[in-house]
Amino acid sequence: MAYLKNAWYVSALSTEVGPVELFHRKIMDTSILIYRKEDGVAVALHDRCPHRFAPLHLGKRDGDQVICIYHALRFDCTGKCTHNPHGEGRIPQAAVVRSFPLEERHGMLWIWMGDQPADLARLPDFGPLDEGHPHGVGYTYMHMKANYELIIDNVMDLSHIDHLHGEIITTRGKLSPKVPQIKEGARSISARWEWEQTPAMLIFADHLPQPKEEARHFFDITWTPPANIQLSVGAVQNDGALDLANCVGQYDLHTTTPETENSTHYFFATRRNHIEDDAGYNDMKIKAMHAAFENEDGPVITAAHEEMGTTDFFSLKPVLMTNDIAPVKVRRLLSKLIKEEQRPDALAQ
Amino acid sequence: MAYLKNAWYVSALSTEVGPVELFHRKIMDTSILIYRKEDGVAVALHDRCPHRFAPLHLGKRDGDQVICIYHALRFDCTGKCTHNPHGEGRIPQAAVVRSFPLEERHGMLWIWMGDQPADLARLPDFGPLDEGHPHGVGYTYMHMKANYELIIDNVMDLSHIDHLHGEIITTRGKLSPKVPQIKEGARSISARWEWEQTPAMLIFADHLPQPKEEARHFFDITWTPPANIQLSVGAVQNDGALDLANCVGQYDLHTTTPETENSTHYFFATRRNHIEDDAGYNDMKIKAMHAAFENEDGPVITAAHEEMGTTDFFSLKPVLMTNDIAPVKVRRLLSKLIKEEQRPDALAQ
Amino acid sequence: MAYLKNAWYVSALSTEVGPVELFHRKIMDTSILIYRKEDGVAVALHDRCPHRFAPLHLGKRDGDQVICIYHALRFDCTGKCTHNPHGEGRIPQAAVVRSFPLEERHGMLWIWMGDQPADLARLPDFGPLDEGHPHGVGYTYMHMKANYELIIDNVMDLSHIDHLHGEIITTRGKLSPKVPQIKEGARSISARWEWEQTPAMLIFADHLPQPKEEARHFFDITWTPPANIQLSVGAVQNDGALDLANCVGQYDLHTTTPETENSTHYFFATRRNHIEDDAGYNDMKIKAMHAAFENEDGPVITAAHEEMGTTDFFSLKPVLMTNDIAPVKVRRLLSKLIKEEQRPDALAQ
Repeated sequence: MAYLKNAWYVSALSTEVGPVELFHRKIMDTSILIYRKEDGVAVALHDRCPHRFAPLHLGKRDGDQVICIYHALRFDCTGKCTHNPHGEGRIPQAAVVRSFPLEERHGMLWIWMGDQPADLARLPDFGPLDEGHPHGVGYTYMHMKANYELIIDNVMDLSHIDHLHGEIITTRGKLSPKVPQIKEGARSISARWEWEQTPAMLIFADHLPQPKEEARHFFDITWTPPANIQLSVGAVQNDGALDLANCVGQYDLHTTTPETENSTHYFFATRRNHIEDDAGYNDMKIKAMHAAFENEDGPVITAAHEEMGTTDFFSLKPVLMTNDIAPVKVRRLLSKLIKEEQRPDALAQ
Repeated sequence: MAYLKNAWYVSALSTEVGPVELFHRKIMDTSILIYRKEDGVAVALHDRCPHRFAPLHLGKRDGDQVICIYHALRFDCTGKCTHNPHGEGRIPQAAVVRSFPLEERHGMLWIWMGDQPADLARLPDFGPLDEGHPHGVGYTYMHMKANYELIIDNVMDLSHIDHLHGEIITTRGKLSPKVPQIKEGARSISARWEWEQTPAMLIFADHLPQPKEEARHFFDITWTPPANIQLSVGAVQNDGALDLANCVGQYDLHTTTPETENSTHYFFATRRNHIEDDAGYNDMKIKAMHAAFENEDGPVITAAHEEMGTTDFFSLKPVLMTNDIAPVKVRRLLSKLIKEEQRPDALAQ
Repeated sequence: MAYLKNAWYVSALSTEVGPVELFHRKIMDTSILIYRKEDGVAVALHDRCPHRFAPLHLGKRDGDQVICIYHALRFDCTGKCTHNPHGEGRIPQAAVVRSFPLEERHGMLWIWMGDQPADLARLPDFGPLDEGHPHGVGYTYMHMKANYELIIDNVMDLSHIDHLHGEIITTRGKLSPKVPQIKEGARSISARWEWEQTPAMLIFADHLPQPKEEARHFFDITWTPPANIQLSVGAVQNDGALDLANCVGQYDLHTTTPETENSTHYFFATRRNHIEDDAGYNDMKIKAMHAAFENEDGPVITAAHEEMGTTDFFSLKPVLMTNDIAPVKVRRLLSKLIKEEQRPDALAQ
């Protein structure tokens, strides 16, 4: 399957990789080893010894180095072989493990899987996740047995929330009739919805001045390649701006990483701007959102994936409607970027 | 795999589809939704929303309509989209779910999967199943991990019953030496065996005048496309006709529906002409027959399927004997009908 | 996958096939039935009835004959059909089950899967397994989810033992720096290591005159096609010859049989020359070795297999070192023998 390779994908939540653990995960069909050096900085290597192909995560650490379990070849955190206990100990030139650029930002470990030099300018700034009380932000990880583009589709078309999800985030039918405003960038697609509902979304109503009265709402989502969707949502009962600064709301990041063409690592982060210092509420909130993805979105996306198999989405002639404008634009732009990357002269760009 | 498409297959027993349930089953590699309208009439639709390919059985009913769980497109029982809650609510012309002709007869829901107009003349009459006391008939369903033609072979060659099955239906070696009389029609293959045994088959002996004495027996089976085998069997101790009217016996229907090329829905119905009003006996009888298929035929057919894989039966050069005449004639006629259906001019026939 | 066909593989341990059992095992993608005649001599047939492809092991025995469960065709131990209960009982000429030459030697049942005449000269002599006290020898069988050549690699490169295995067979780092002496025959590859360590390998130390002192050690391994590795290992504290006659040691046979290209039957036998009459020690010893293969070698070999898939080993460009000389020579010689066997004129050789 064609993936956008020269891009930053989340390989793991920061909290998934402990200080001494040899963490491993398959990313775009490749086995990846992730571990933190003694200074805490995380590194990523191909999880495969170049000698006999044993996974390195089965081995052990010695300081910042990794020792293969099978024949004890030792590699530093750049993948260079530093010790061969066999024969006279000569280290073959080819005894190198591929290393992958890894950046820790916004509570996540971002990996660059491509052959072009890693370009930090391509890692979007999700700074708002980092700003505020530590109990105002939550993170979760889900493994989904579906292609990652179906998960992007799901978030890019928020019209599903009244139909698929429960009472707690219902817009009482107000969202679906709205056709979102779309903005297209060279490497981004945004959609914005605005609506009124009475009462406000239940996740916000109690934090507004008049919980049972009407409130103005907005959703603002922006996809950036390869698979990030930043979503802001809020409600307000004053006449000010319809943005997070003036609303009771939250700043979320949905981001997906293909494991294979049939399975996806789904990472989610959410920062709210209300009752930020309540650890119990924070815990309940991220668990509830995790449960909604797993129990409500997950089964439908997985079932649709099983229906589609690996057949190309457009070749199945989906009936497309106004609510599909944003996800279809994302599919087309992503497809264009992948094709550009695969052009013979792509490296020279 | 090539299936005969323009034909009636059993999709479900009548009792499998409750009054409000959204029942689903994969038939010839296609996901099918079956439900009963409020008037009880069952209908069949492709179990896939044409928008984003979510299975419709995950959704809910509103009267005779079905609402997709994902984005709430609503379809009537013919598959026509009747409501789109998105944007201005325009219904795209392509928003149609394929519907399949469905006929409820003889306690079963028969589906027509082909592109030609459904032809009721092609649905054989198994009327005797419907005639008699309600406790004189039983139905069962089995899922088999084997190609459907192996199950047809099994019933078309009844010589296996003395070898594979237990005491209760043994012919005491009398059946195998008999070469059945074969009758071939344009769209049917029949086989008939007649023999004497002492005592009679144990399922009949106690219902005959002299349970320990010799009785004349017959088997009469008729295959009709695509996958129906009507089997009559009986025993008698008078000099009258060797048929169900004069014998203690039963009228059975074995019919199979491919789920995939490697798995089959196996439906079975049996009507007996003795102790018809005994609900307990009826229950015991259908359970015993179900158990025999599952525990005796099933493992052998499944194991043979695993040995054969998807290799064509004849290309494996099976050793064929007198007992294979009927099943081989069925395989050849079915293959001929499939080839005719696939000819470019088949629709015009 | 290409296997060396005209060669002897172990199909089962002698103890795996009881006196009346219809034992079955898949060997090189083919279902094999093994059973012992009434005189105890084991025979091997294709585990597939030539009529309807039911596995014969589901059937029953009548003396030295096997009766198919499905339609009761009866075959003698050479695979010849001796009885057909159907119709007039004529036995079709094609009603023959393929039989495979089977030799019971050294506690194992060796099968010849090829089309050329079985050649007993190609069955190596592992006679030392048979000589000595019955409590001085142990056998075990393991099923491994990995290609058989990876298991051969593992034994041909014993440098892994200090790294992968526990204290009990450690050479305290003395083995890895040694480059083994290699001997190449027309149909064999041998490797020999010699070293000193203090104390001796723990499996031998207590049986030497001075358990805590230095001892001289050797490993001697010889691969013969298709997949046998005879391994001798010993330790001594006198100045005599470094061989099993003069050492405390053991004579082992590792041999593998492909089930499929992704799974292997791994057989192991070990004969020691010390405390030979202790049944409890013998039992503990074979269980400990079985556990080491299953818990230490197994997971690494299986994980390497998963990393490699069915990709050719050399095409993955493994980094090869001094410890790989012996296994690489085996891979190359085996590959050469397979290619020779597949030449059009191979049968004439």
